[in-house]
Amino acid sequence: MERANGSPLRGGIDLGGTKIEAIVVDAGHNVLGSSRHPTPSSGGPEAVAAELVAAMREACQAAGVETSSLQGVGVGSPGVVDEAAGTVSTARNLPDWEGSFELGAALSRELGTTATLGNDVQVATDAEFELGAGKAYRSLLGVMWGTGVGGGIVLDGKPWLGRGGAGEIGHVVVKIDGRRCPCGRRGCMEAYAGRAAMEARARRKQEEGTPTDLFKIMKDRGRTKLTSAVWAKALEREDKLAVELIDEAVEALGAGIASAQNLLDVQAIVIGGGLGVRLGEPFVKRIRTAMEPHVFNDANWPDVLLAGLGDLGGALGAALLVSRRVEGKPAPVAETPSAAG
Amino acid sequence: MERANGSPLRGGIDLGGTKIEAIVVDAGHNVLGSSRHPTPSSGGPEAVAAELVAAMREACQAAGVETSSLQGVGVGSPGVVDEAAGTVSTARNLPDWEGSFELGAALSRELGTTATLGNDVQVATDAEFELGAGKAYRSLLGVMWGTGVGGGIVLDGKPWLGRGGAGEIGHVVVKIDGRRCPCGRRGCMEAYAGRAAMEARARRKQEEGTPTDLFKIMKDRGRTKLTSAVWAKALEREDKLAVELIDEAVEALGAGIASAQNLLDVQAIVIGGGLGVRLGEPFVKRIRTAMEPHVFNDANWPDVLLAGLGDLGGALGAALLVSRRVEGKPAPVAETPSAAG
Repeated sequence: MERANGSPLRGGIDLGGTKIEAIVVDAGHNVLGSSRHPTPSSGGPEAVAAELVAAMREACQAAGVETSSLQGVGVGSPGVVDEAAGTVSTARNLPDWEGSFELGAALSRELGTTATLGNDVQVATDAEFELGAGKAYRSLLGVMWGTGVGGGIVLDGKPWLGRGGAGEIGHVVVKIDGRRCPCGRRGCMEAYAGRAAMEARARRKQEEGTPTDLFKIMKDRGRTKLTSAVWAKALEREDKLAVELIDEAVEALGAGIASAQNLLDVQAIVIGGGLGVRLGEPFVKRIRTAMEPHVFNDANWPDVLLAGLGDLGGALGAALLVSRRVEGKPAPVAETPSAAG
Repeated sequence: MERANGSPLRGGIDLGGTKIEAIVVDAGHNVLGSSRHPTPSSGGPEAVAAELVAAMREACQAAGVETSSLQGVGVGSPGVVDEAAGTVSTARNLPDWEGSFELGAALSRELGTTATLGNDVQVATDAEFELGAGKAYRSLLGVMWGTGVGGGIVLDGKPWLGRGGAGEIGHVVVKIDGRRCPCGRRGCMEAYAGRAAMEARARRKQEEGTPTDLFKIMKDRGRTKLTSAVWAKALEREDKLAVELIDEAVEALGAGIASAQNLLDVQAIVIGGGLGVRLGEPFVKRIRTAMEPHVFNDANWPDVLLAGLGDLGGALGAALLVSRRVEGKPAPVAETPSAAG
């Protein structure tokens, strides 16, 4: 398939801890081809890079184009992303990715087009801001509720990155001396609401004798992790442990998001991420209700909305990285550690 | 005293729940005259306005000028401040100030010069950013630790006000189902760290039989409230209850400020306010230590600093409101509730 007027196509890849989502979009952000691959669970950064290449090639095939004809490929990645250097470091949810890896250069070489990297959560928030539920607003807090809980911040129409580490809403403290978080700290929101933390707790509870269908549903579906779909199914069946853990997650999300709102006072809060998208509107309402005891400016609520782009938000946001580069819009720049530094 | 070259003088008033601090400054922010009055505890907004006028007149007298010769007077006020309308509403720490009062117009009329209003905490943060401990930074979180705990945010060199309600760090949740806060909610940082909350708890503990010298020190000093100086004295004497309550306050400040940092990732955090300034550097160090278990980006700490302008920060910041107006710099504008609103 040839594109008559040569309308520029862009690639977008959402690199998650569980899956890789690759898409090809046109200038109007329409998806022309897509593919989904599981994220390798071993083999380090090289194996992940190879899988990203394979997924992007497949999406291009579906769209009937060569990867080299793309204006570029954007990647939303976990870990510490240095956009300028094209590196990803210490990506805890990816296999053996403790050091720094030149992912941008590796992908550019294999795909024959420029690869641009961004932080996965910020990229998903940008997509909601530009194309999704956040379109009507100038300030936004994106809450990506999945394996962990990530936050993206848009203030006055621009992403706020701080010194590169802003938006860590998952590690807002909701309970001093509270539950241990996968990050090693205590009382973080993610310790109650992150899917990884919830799975660890469910396993422990089951080992201690609490009955639950969670792991049975997981096996029936051929999974090795409690995916968002497994949680949804267990809730549907009113599995007592699943209900209890999700209740705690919602309570923690309510407190943590309200804390962020008390600080930032944004116009809108958008709930996305694997669990957020899977559980959908009823849970956005529950999170809003859980915020109520804690929102200080209660005469002036922000809008609390479900992500509008569903599962594709991350990949669409990644493709926006290419649009920005091509249109000469500077990527949002993180501040230096200090004026002196 | 006449000023030879007519160097423009500006007035600044810090309106606190306990005291009113009024100063006259020159263009170089040097204090030429000052006065301090207790805040009226009855008589409503009119009584407070009259006291602000009296304090400003006294500061002008000390500087040898008429109030009408000032370029203007700035006021940092608690409550909900509408800079454009010149009104203050629902100022809980001021007497009978539930409704809205046109403080700007009242002061302008009595003083014969334009009065400009700003939020007390934001104004104190601006002063630290422009003139104090925050001078070297582009992004800043000001934490004003006093009767309550207020927060001021500067991002990329500009105050961030949100929709007018940003910076409520005192109402960041540090403990779900935690202690009752003076605001009526549960588990807010201020429920543990605000001087009003600490005093209420100290009274209850004493009534329940816990021995303490706090109220004896208060009476010996002719006070009716546990002022910052009373707390400092009790700590000096190693009063067990005072030590315990301040320990809890420091722990809560550590968690709440770390949460804010995890979200905002600013370059510097400046601790001020009545208690912050009175307890000083050793307590800034203790707060930093209390942040340690919770700061996510622990390879890249912000600087944590004591406010540099001491007790005068609020009044100096208020005078900056006049400088801004005179120099035609627009006041930072809060966002509308939503793009649609």
